[in-house]
Amino acid sequence: MKPFINDDFLLDTQEARTLYHTYAEPCPVIDYHCHLDPEEIASNRPFENITQAWLGGDHYKWRAMRTVGVPECLITGDADDHAKFLAWAETLPKLLRNPLYHWSHLELARVFGINDVLLEPKTAEMVWQRANAVLTSPGNGARDILMRLGVRLVCTTDDPDDTLAAHRAQNVRDEVLKMRPTWRPGRHLALCDTSLPFDKMLEHLRERHNYFHEAGCRLSDYSVESFVPPADEAQACATYEAVRAGKEPGGASRAAFAAWLLLFLAKLDAASGWVRQLHIGALRNPNVRMFNALGPDTGFDAIADFSYAAPLASHLSMLAEANALPRTILYNLNPKDTQMLAVLCGSFQDGTPGGRVTLGPAWWFLDQINGIEDNLNAISMLGCLSQFPGMLTDSRSVLSVPRHEYFRRIVCRMLGHDLREGILPDDLPAVGAMVQAISCGNAQALFK
Amino acid sequence: MKPFINDDFLLDTQEARTLYHTYAEPCPVIDYHCHLDPEEIASNRPFENITQAWLGGDHYKWRAMRTVGVPECLITGDADDHAKFLAWAETLPKLLRNPLYHWSHLELARVFGINDVLLEPKTAEMVWQRANAVLTSPGNGARDILMRLGVRLVCTTDDPDDTLAAHRAQNVRDEVLKMRPTWRPGRHLALCDTSLPFDKMLEHLRERHNYFHEAGCRLSDYSVESFVPPADEAQACATYEAVRAGKEPGGASRAAFAAWLLLFLAKLDAASGWVRQLHIGALRNPNVRMFNALGPDTGFDAIADFSYAAPLASHLSMLAEANALPRTILYNLNPKDTQMLAVLCGSFQDGTPGGRVTLGPAWWFLDQINGIEDNLNAISMLGCLSQFPGMLTDSRSVLSVPRHEYFRRIVCRMLGHDLREGILPDDLPAVGAMVQAISCGNAQALFK
Amino acid sequence: MKPFINDDFLLDTQEARTLYHTYAEPCPVIDYHCHLDPEEIASNRPFENITQAWLGGDHYKWRAMRTVGVPECLITGDADDHAKFLAWAETLPKLLRNPLYHWSHLELARVFGINDVLLEPKTAEMVWQRANAVLTSPGNGARDILMRLGVRLVCTTDDPDDTLAAHRAQNVRDEVLKMRPTWRPGRHLALCDTSLPFDKMLEHLRERHNYFHEAGCRLSDYSVESFVPPADEAQACATYEAVRAGKEPGGASRAAFAAWLLLFLAKLDAASGWVRQLHIGALRNPNVRMFNALGPDTGFDAIADFSYAAPLASHLSMLAEANALPRTILYNLNPKDTQMLAVLCGSFQDGTPGGRVTLGPAWWFLDQINGIEDNLNAISMLGCLSQFPGMLTDSRSVLSVPRHEYFRRIVCRMLGHDLREGILPDDLPAVGAMVQAISCGNAQALFK
Repeated sequence: MKPFINDDFLLDTQEARTLYHTYAEPCPVIDYHCHLDPEEIASNRPFENITQAWLGGDHYKWRAMRTVGVPECLITGDADDHAKFLAWAETLPKLLRNPLYHWSHLELARVFGINDVLLEPKTAEMVWQRANAVLTSPGNGARDILMRLGVRLVCTTDDPDDTLAAHRAQNVRDEVLKMRPTWRPGRHLALCDTSLPFDKMLEHLRERHNYFHEAGCRLSDYSVESFVPPADEAQACATYEAVRAGKEPGGASRAAFAAWLLLFLAKLDAASGWVRQLHIGALRNPNVRMFNALGPDTGFDAIADFSYAAPLASHLSMLAEANALPRTILYNLNPKDTQMLAVLCGSFQDGTPGGRVTLGPAWWFLDQINGIEDNLNAISMLGCLSQFPGMLTDSRSVLSVPRHEYFRRIVCRMLGHDLREGILPDDLPAVGAMVQAISCGNAQALFK
Repeated sequence: MKPFINDDFLLDTQEARTLYHTYAEPCPVIDYHCHLDPEEIASNRPFENITQAWLGGDHYKWRAMRTVGVPECLITGDADDHAKFLAWAETLPKLLRNPLYHWSHLELARVFGINDVLLEPKTAEMVWQRANAVLTSPGNGARDILMRLGVRLVCTTDDPDDTLAAHRAQNVRDEVLKMRPTWRPGRHLALCDTSLPFDKMLEHLRERHNYFHEAGCRLSDYSVESFVPPADEAQACATYEAVRAGKEPGGASRAAFAAWLLLFLAKLDAASGWVRQLHIGALRNPNVRMFNALGPDTGFDAIADFSYAAPLASHLSMLAEANALPRTILYNLNPKDTQMLAVLCGSFQDGTPGGRVTLGPAWWFLDQINGIEDNLNAISMLGCLSQFPGMLTDSRSVLSVPRHEYFRRIVCRMLGHDLREGILPDDLPAVGAMVQAISCGNAQALFK
Repeated sequence: MKPFINDDFLLDTQEARTLYHTYAEPCPVIDYHCHLDPEEIASNRPFENITQAWLGGDHYKWRAMRTVGVPECLITGDADDHAKFLAWAETLPKLLRNPLYHWSHLELARVFGINDVLLEPKTAEMVWQRANAVLTSPGNGARDILMRLGVRLVCTTDDPDDTLAAHRAQNVRDEVLKMRPTWRPGRHLALCDTSLPFDKMLEHLRERHNYFHEAGCRLSDYSVESFVPPADEAQACATYEAVRAGKEPGGASRAAFAAWLLLFLAKLDAASGWVRQLHIGALRNPNVRMFNALGPDTGFDAIADFSYAAPLASHLSMLAEANALPRTILYNLNPKDTQMLAVLCGSFQDGTPGGRVTLGPAWWFLDQINGIEDNLNAISMLGCLSQFPGMLTDSRSVLSVPRHEYFRRIVCRMLGHDLREGILPDDLPAVGAMVQAISCGNAQALFK
């Protein structure tokens, strides 16, 4: 019987198969946004077993396990790695139609060569043995795996105070797999670091921005959880100094401060020619009980539903008026906003090749077959698909690289349908060139 | 010619036909939310004609009739039952692609055995005669019809002061068709009953909650038309006593009172191990003229579009922190919120088998082929389809039971496509088990 | 090889082909909402070249050109018409899957008979020559083109102070192609014309409304960019007089004034038996820099995302209570609102044949294959597709008429799928009658 993950997985037309195998598959992987630990890559971290590589830190899987009734001790608790793996193997068959079902089997196939069985309780022990045999054999460290999966560039997400030593080490050592940092001053936006006086803090950020630039950074990243009119500089200073003095200036002042600092930082990005990423609309830590127990990024976040077209437009407009609008990629978490954002991008185009403001790929919860299709359709119908910068993993695990393959298969599947139905002209080379651009070309161009 | 409602209605792949006929069709109907009159069931109410059983109280049909130009006298007015039926027969052919078109023909086929004609003016008289012949023959009372359509459990919606005599009578008499009440204290949330002082009112609700529990109630139901921060108990008391004293405390105080009482009632539900239902986002009685003329629930309600992710999350979080979050099913009326809610459920999972917080089936206006598919996709991609509690009629008419069949056909159709396209692994028994769980197994487990 | 734009473009089932060629294609075009210049039609304006007819004033194309990197001088700037055409020919191949790709090739085929090549740099010169040869030959003025494309009625959009001389001239001259004005008092709603005192202004609007009625106007059009509770008449007067006196009354007062005036104007429309159009949810001129450089309607508008179900319902309810709710067509720009609006329409149905309040076709950014399908699905599932008034161009160019053909093909494609899958009964004449009604019959009935 044909394995579930076979050569033509998701490719249900001849057109899709040709597009994928001829144009998409050969492309290198440019993973321009992820949360991998740079040190893991630079040091080529070895793994003792598949739980370490696959379940440690993967809050998508944790969330699914809690949903189907697995107790916390087998998820983030004290249970041993083998027991945790078995709990995951019990969970997976209950996730039919969930992206984790596809991701997991793609990862087993591509990283471990296991595509002859599905992961379920009765195959769990065998998968555990086979996967661990791979992981503990030579050439299976974190960097080895990235290399084998075709990754040629990985952009991590980094605090402004990071030394970037791991990036330098990796880039010195390796001519093939490059690693670039991404500037993510989230602590500063959230007023979590007020060790310096206001002016010194700004000066420090400017210096670190330069430091990052010299280390090859060309991307920044900001999480935006509300959009409000920005404070002016004096108000921003007052709020900052209030926090520094141990006072609590209130949510509205904090938000206005963040809106001001976002403008300040955008101007640094624009001056350096960086591409700026705005991740908009997460509802973080809504479950206070579990936040207190486990902390952030443990699988309890959700989607916010505030309205923000006008204030986001105003933010972009202020920067455009100041001639300081960096190239910007917008990511939205609430799918109700996808089309609104795709249109808003068009309102700030100014003849920049590739686009001044661009909608990014389907993010986080939306990184699944329907979410990706909705994202591609919004970009196609309301923007310009051929300029789309394409996929990223957003992941904390090196095993997630096949999400690029998953995305490419979905792209080719959709375009295959279009070709079959006469929605696209019968010109495979032209459509194939677009597939190639989306698979890697446009992302590569971001760093030219 | 094959009738429109044939064995394979909506089942456009062999996979779908196998799933439906092998796994879904044999399942009993567990109708865990409806607005049937318990007395009608307990007394096995007879019907004189199809208008009584089909058009009386069905505000979906009324709304459609108004839309296509039928005057009100033929809808809710003084016209006789025969004339009203003819008006409906004139309406139906204009509703191609509307769910009423499918529902109505399914109901004619399943309840009356009429699937050789479509209802339209030229067949109306014949359908009237044939349907009435069925209804006026023995074995066609309200309970008979439910039984014949495979219903094994029906959960009505009941005021806390209901005696539940009809439920007791039915459950004593009948071993096959069980009827359970659902606790719906809507009058109390809306401050419509302030006959008792605040403390006595709370005590009364506690007593009635116990009374319902003893009568077999395991479900509660709350309509939530806004989400605001809850009052504290003193404020809630003050608002309640103000209304009791004939004053008007204003919309904000009323909403804060309702938010507080919702927490109070949730704790009762949690303590009793009930499943709580929140119906979120109706815009009730927006047409003041027609509300004044005909009252509520006459086909004039609409969909609200307020934002509520953060306050709903806060409501759930407060209960989780107090260790008093009941199993909760969320129903949304505005489809822009479906995915947001599906994700929010995941933020409150705690290892409870079946899930602590769950998205319910497509509700009211969304109970149609596209709405059901969107709901199933959201649950699949963002939650866990195999745990989905499945369909309910939400209806006021015993003739609506085939909505369960409609839902199951749509589920099998979707999964059939997935199997055909390699999106699901080629394992019919595994997919069939999921179909069975969604068709009845998960709903049955709610009452274990 | 079959041309891209062939007889069966988009018609992927036999059922769709029969529906389109038998029922849709023969229908005349009733373009009940557009922004054509009445003078261009009355005078049968000749065009010197395709850039004049196709690119001048088309902000959809301008926006796309900016997106792919074309400098402004080649879009709205000083470059010559030939250079601008070449810039567009470079742009188009980058717009695969964007509606402009389909629209443009449909227009080349239908207006110029060019369907043997796709427009791209290497065909640009040839297309330029062939198209210009058509345009500069006799019988290719603006009115000629409309006639040849089957247009029988065009409704322009006009300021209350317009003399309507062009309309009168056209209607006297031409028995086949009729032109009606549409009342669009946008300047008054926006407080841009306060030359008269408040009472005189109202009187003036009343007189001009009559004047429009006598000139054949049966449609009004209002752009609604927020919904707020209306001012009372005294407040409205105060706000108006403040602006008139050179003061700035603030955004909230302006919005409340507009809400009041919208009610006032609705009553005029109701008294005259007009059909009122509300275009809801544009975010206009969000890019201040480009607004200052190029002015409005130059391709920089976007989609707003405010909530408005309750205030819109309240607006409609006030009119219904006053027995002064005109037949109203609602257009939404944010697709998150499509289903909410489709349902809200149903809350104001009152037995008026064709419907009292109706959802209009997919508007502006949503006028593309996915947007049209979503719109049709919302109307079908939540309203009444057979009563749908159908398509309009909303365009500033006579070359845009094939958008009607595009829409009809998408309708037939969708219904063809339904017939094939047994979702619609196997009754082509009944479904065909619906296609005909949507293609022209329902729009014609608006003006009976």
